[in-house]
Amino acid sequence: MVTWQDVVAQKRADREKLLERYKLPESALPPKDDLYVYDFFDKGGADSLLSAKEKEITAIDDIDTLAAMIREGTYSATEVISAYIKRATVAHQLTNALSEVVFEQALVRAKELDEYYAKEGKTVGKYHGVPLTLKDQFNVYGVDTTLGYVGRANNPVMDKSKEAVLVTIFEKEGAVVIAKTNLPQSIMWCECENPLWGCTVNPRRRDFTSGGSTGGEGALLALKASIMGWGTDLGGSVRIPQVMNGGYGLRPSAWRIPYEGVPVTIDGQEHVPSVIGPMTRNLDSLISITKAVIENEPWTLDPKCIPIPWRQEIFDQYLSKKKFIIGVMKDDGVVRVHPPIERTLREAAEKLKAAGHEIVEWSAPDLHQELVPILNKFYIADGGEDVKSDVNKMGEPFMPYVEAMVNRGPPISIPEYWHNMVLKRELQKKYLDRWNASGKLTSTSEPIDFILAPGCPHTAVPCRKTNWVGYTRVWNGLDYSAAVFPVSHVDKEIDSLNEEQRAYVPRNDWDSTNWPLYDPETMDGLPVNLQIVAGRLAEEKLLAVVKRVEEVLKA
Amino acid sequence: MVTWQDVVAQKRADREKLLERYKLPESALPPKDDLYVYDFFDKGGADSLLSAKEKEITAIDDIDTLAAMIREGTYSATEVISAYIKRATVAHQLTNALSEVVFEQALVRAKELDEYYAKEGKTVGKYHGVPLTLKDQFNVYGVDTTLGYVGRANNPVMDKSKEAVLVTIFEKEGAVVIAKTNLPQSIMWCECENPLWGCTVNPRRRDFTSGGSTGGEGALLALKASIMGWGTDLGGSVRIPQVMNGGYGLRPSAWRIPYEGVPVTIDGQEHVPSVIGPMTRNLDSLISITKAVIENEPWTLDPKCIPIPWRQEIFDQYLSKKKFIIGVMKDDGVVRVHPPIERTLREAAEKLKAAGHEIVEWSAPDLHQELVPILNKFYIADGGEDVKSDVNKMGEPFMPYVEAMVNRGPPISIPEYWHNMVLKRELQKKYLDRWNASGKLTSTSEPIDFILAPGCPHTAVPCRKTNWVGYTRVWNGLDYSAAVFPVSHVDKEIDSLNEEQRAYVPRNDWDSTNWPLYDPETMDGLPVNLQIVAGRLAEEKLLAVVKRVEEVLKA
Repeated sequence: MVTWQDVVAQKRADREKLLERYKLPESALPPKDDLYVYDFFDKGGADSLLSAKEKEITAIDDIDTLAAMIREGTYSATEVISAYIKRATVAHQLTNALSEVVFEQALVRAKELDEYYAKEGKTVGKYHGVPLTLKDQFNVYGVDTTLGYVGRANNPVMDKSKEAVLVTIFEKEGAVVIAKTNLPQSIMWCECENPLWGCTVNPRRRDFTSGGSTGGEGALLALKASIMGWGTDLGGSVRIPQVMNGGYGLRPSAWRIPYEGVPVTIDGQEHVPSVIGPMTRNLDSLISITKAVIENEPWTLDPKCIPIPWRQEIFDQYLSKKKFIIGVMKDDGVVRVHPPIERTLREAAEKLKAAGHEIVEWSAPDLHQELVPILNKFYIADGGEDVKSDVNKMGEPFMPYVEAMVNRGPPISIPEYWHNMVLKRELQKKYLDRWNASGKLTSTSEPIDFILAPGCPHTAVPCRKTNWVGYTRVWNGLDYSAAVFPVSHVDKEIDSLNEEQRAYVPRNDWDSTNWPLYDPETMDGLPVNLQIVAGRLAEEKLLAVVKRVEEVLKA
Repeated sequence: MVTWQDVVAQKRADREKLLERYKLPESALPPKDDLYVYDFFDKGGADSLLSAKEKEITAIDDIDTLAAMIREGTYSATEVISAYIKRATVAHQLTNALSEVVFEQALVRAKELDEYYAKEGKTVGKYHGVPLTLKDQFNVYGVDTTLGYVGRANNPVMDKSKEAVLVTIFEKEGAVVIAKTNLPQSIMWCECENPLWGCTVNPRRRDFTSGGSTGGEGALLALKASIMGWGTDLGGSVRIPQVMNGGYGLRPSAWRIPYEGVPVTIDGQEHVPSVIGPMTRNLDSLISITKAVIENEPWTLDPKCIPIPWRQEIFDQYLSKKKFIIGVMKDDGVVRVHPPIERTLREAAEKLKAAGHEIVEWSAPDLHQELVPILNKFYIADGGEDVKSDVNKMGEPFMPYVEAMVNRGPPISIPEYWHNMVLKRELQKKYLDRWNASGKLTSTSEPIDFILAPGCPHTAVPCRKTNWVGYTRVWNGLDYSAAVFPVSHVDKEIDSLNEEQRAYVPRNDWDSTNWPLYDPETMDGLPVNLQIVAGRLAEEKLLAVVKRVEEVLKA
C-alpha cells in the first residue's frame, strides 16, 4: 500500500530531479543555521551559476521594462527564462518555495518565442518571454494542483482546456510559466507549510514565516526569483506574504480577475469568495498585469467574471486628483499593531498631510468586530468536512492550525447559513453608509477617497506564530479592493518599546498572542508595509492612489 | 386570540376603507361571471368615475411622454395621480390586484410636487408626478411588506431609511408610489394567490391567472391602471405575468438594480438570486426607467450593486448594428410550447430573416435539463423551513403549490449546497462556451448576438394550472439578462391544432400537464409574447436589440 510518506518522498524526489541541473552544490549554500539569506545573490553567492547578464536580467523589478528589453532584442526569451530558472532554483534551495517545476516546458516555449521573434520580427503579446509563477492552486497543464494536500498529488491536469483562464491569458500575451509555488495545507492559513512540501521560510530571517497562504510567491519575489506572481486571497493570502516580504500585492474585488480553472478548498463557498490577485516587486508591474488581464476580457472565458473593462479614465482621474481625503485607520479595535507599524502609519499620514492631502481618522471597530464571527462561520460551515476529507485521503497528519480550524464546531444548517449571508449583507450596508457619512468629518463634506491602514498588525514573525488576520480579512468580507505596498523598515533604535507600549495590557486573547511577538532585535530591518483600501470594484482608483501615495512617501 | 382569519378580515376591511371613495358602485361593475373585462374602461364602464381627461391621461402608455406633458404643464401631478388612483381602484375591483394602498399619501406628495412646480417653475426629477406601483415585497414607508403571508401583516415599515432603495431613487426623480400589488404566498410561484388577499385574475379572462409572482402588476398594467411597475424575478416572476398580460418585462442580471430594502423569501439564498425588474406598457418606458435607476448610481446605496454605469455606447452600438445573428430557440427539450407560440416564433424568425438578419437554430436542451435539478435544490435547500415558518406563524393554510414545494424533500447539508454551487458554475461555463462556439453555425463565424425564444410554453392559462417555468428560469440560473415583449395574439382559426399537433405524445409529466392546457377557443385573442436573451450583465445590448426586433416585427 502506498502511504502518504511514500507520496511525499516520491513528489520531493521528482522535484529534485527537475531542479538538479540548475542547483548550486550544497557546499555553495549558506549553512542551515544562517538565518539571513536575503542578500545571498547580491553578495555573489550564486555567481558560479548565474552569469553577470543573468544577474542583470533578474535585477530588473519592472515587468514592462523587462518586456520592452526583450521586445527591443536586448535579451532573448531563452536568456530571460534561463536566468529566472536558475535564480528560482537557488531561491528554492534557500527558502523551499517551489512545488511544481515546469522549467523544461518553459525553455521549449521560450525557444518557440525566440523563433517567432526571429522569423516575424515581432513579439507574441505584451509579455513575450516574461516569466511567471503561480501559487500551487492554478491548473497548469501537465502538473498537479495540490492545494497543499498529499492526497491531491499525482493527479496532473492533462486537458489543456482545464488550465486556469489566467494562464491562458498570459500564454496569449507571451508570458511563460516556470513554476508553481508552495502554500499551506488546505490553503486556509496565513503561513506556508504542509506535509507534502514542508515549510517556506522568509529569506530575510529563515526562522520566520514567508507568510501565506501565497508564501512561496512571497519568498521568490523577495529574492528576485520571479517577476510576476499570482496568488489567491480569501482572508489576506496575497497581501500577508507581501507584507512579510516587503512586496506589492492586490486583492481585487471578487470576479474582476478570472477564477475559472483554479481549484479551491471549500469550493462552492462563494459568499466570502477567494479571489485571485497579482504579486509583484514594484507598483507599475502590479498595475500593468492587472490591466492586462482585464483588457483580455476574461468574462468571455469565465462566466463569473464581471464585464467591467479597464477604466483608464478612473485611473487617470485619481492620478491627477489634486487633494485626497484620506481616512487613516490606526487600529481595528481588536489587535493592536506593533510599534514599527504604528510609527510607519503615523509618519505616512504626516507626509501626506504635508503634501496637501486631508487626513481624517477612520474608525469602525464595532463593524470590524461584528464581521469576525460572520466570516468564521462561512469558512467552517461544513464543520471542516471538506478539509478533513482532503487531509484524510492519504492519512497525512493535520497541520496544527488546520486541526484547530476543522474542530472549531459542528456543521451549520442551511437556514443558519442563509442567515449568515443576511448578516454579512447588513454589515456591508452599514460600512457603506458609514463611508458615505464620512463627509461629516471632512473640510469639504466630501466622503473619504480611501482608507490608509496597516496591512498586518506585525511584520514577518516566527514560523507558526501568525494569529490575527483581521486587518486583511475585513476587506474580503466587505469585498473591497485593497493593496499592500512597502513603506518602511523596522529600526530597532526608533522602534524600541516606549513606556506606554511597555505598559500596554492586551485587550483579548488575540491581542495577548500578538503583542509579545514584537521583538525589535530579531525584527530589525524587516520591511513594513501599509495597506490602501478603495471600496468595491475600485481597482483602477486603488492602483492610482497607491501610486500617488507612494510618490509622496518616497519623496 | 387573534386568528389568521381575523387578520385577513381586518386587512381586507382596512384596504376597502382606503379604496372606498374611489370605487365604482357594485351595480356599475360587470357581473362576477363576466370573464372579459379587458375593455371595460374603453367601453365606458368607469365613465361615471373617470373624466375624459382622466381617461386621456391613463391612455398614455409611454412614461417619458407622460412625464413631458406634466413638465410642460399639460397635466398637474395631482391630476395624473388622481386619474391613476381611480383607474387602479376599478382595475382592482375587476381583478383583485392591490394589496397595500397609499392613495392619500400619494395625493399629498402630488400636491407638494405641484406646489414646487408652481413656485420654482421646474419639475422634481425625471418623473415628476408619474405614478408607480410595486409588488408587495418592496418596503414602502407606513405600510406592510407581506410577501403574501398573513403572518407578516400588521408590521409596517416605520423607518424611512428602511424603504427600498428603488423607492428612494424614484422619489428623488419625482415619481409617486400609489399602491403595492398582489403576489402569491411565499412569492415562489408563477401565479398570484394567497390566503391574505386572495387571487389576482387575468383581465382578459377572469378564470385565468394574471401570472406571477408579480401578478398584481401584470393585471394593473394590462388595464392601464399603472404606468410603471416593479417586480422581482427568481424564476420568471417579472416576465411570466407580462407574458400572460401582453406587457413588457425585463429580468436584469443580478445586482444591476438595487435589492436593498426589499425583503424576500429564503433571504440569504443569493446563489440563484431574486432580482428586481421593471414592468411597463411599452418598450421605451422599460428602457427609460432601467436607465434612470442605473444613472442614479445605486451602488452608492446598495453594497451588492455592481458599479456598471448606464453604457449608452453599447446601447447605441446595437441600435445601429446592421445585421444581427440570432439564435432561435424553439424548444427547451423539456416542454413543448403551445401552437400559437410556435407559430409566433416561426413568423418572427421569418420576418427577421427577410429584414436581413441571420437566423441560426439555438439548441441546448441538455444544458437546460441539467440546470433544472440544480435550481430546484437551491430553492428548497432548507427543506422548506423558511416558508413553513412564515406560513405557520398565524396558522394560515398552505396554498397547494406551496405545500407541494416545501414537502419536496429534507434539508440538504452545507457540503451538498456548496457542491450544487459548483455544478451551477460548471453549467454556466458550458453555456458560455457553447455561446462562444456558435460562430461555427454562422456565415460570418461570429457567435450569435442574442437568443430569441418563447417566454413561456403557453399564453395565460386557467388559474392554478401553470406548471413549467423552465423557459424563464434557465436564464436566472445562468444570470443572463432577458426581456419579454408582446408580438402576436392567439387566433383560434390559425392556431387550431394540426394533425401533427393532435397526434403529439408528451415527453414527460411536465409536458403531459402543459400540452392539454391548450384550448384555441378559450385562449382566442390572448397575447403571445416572445423573449430575448442577451447574456450576462448585458442590459443595454438587450434593450437595444428588443427595440430593433420589435421594429421589424411591427413593420
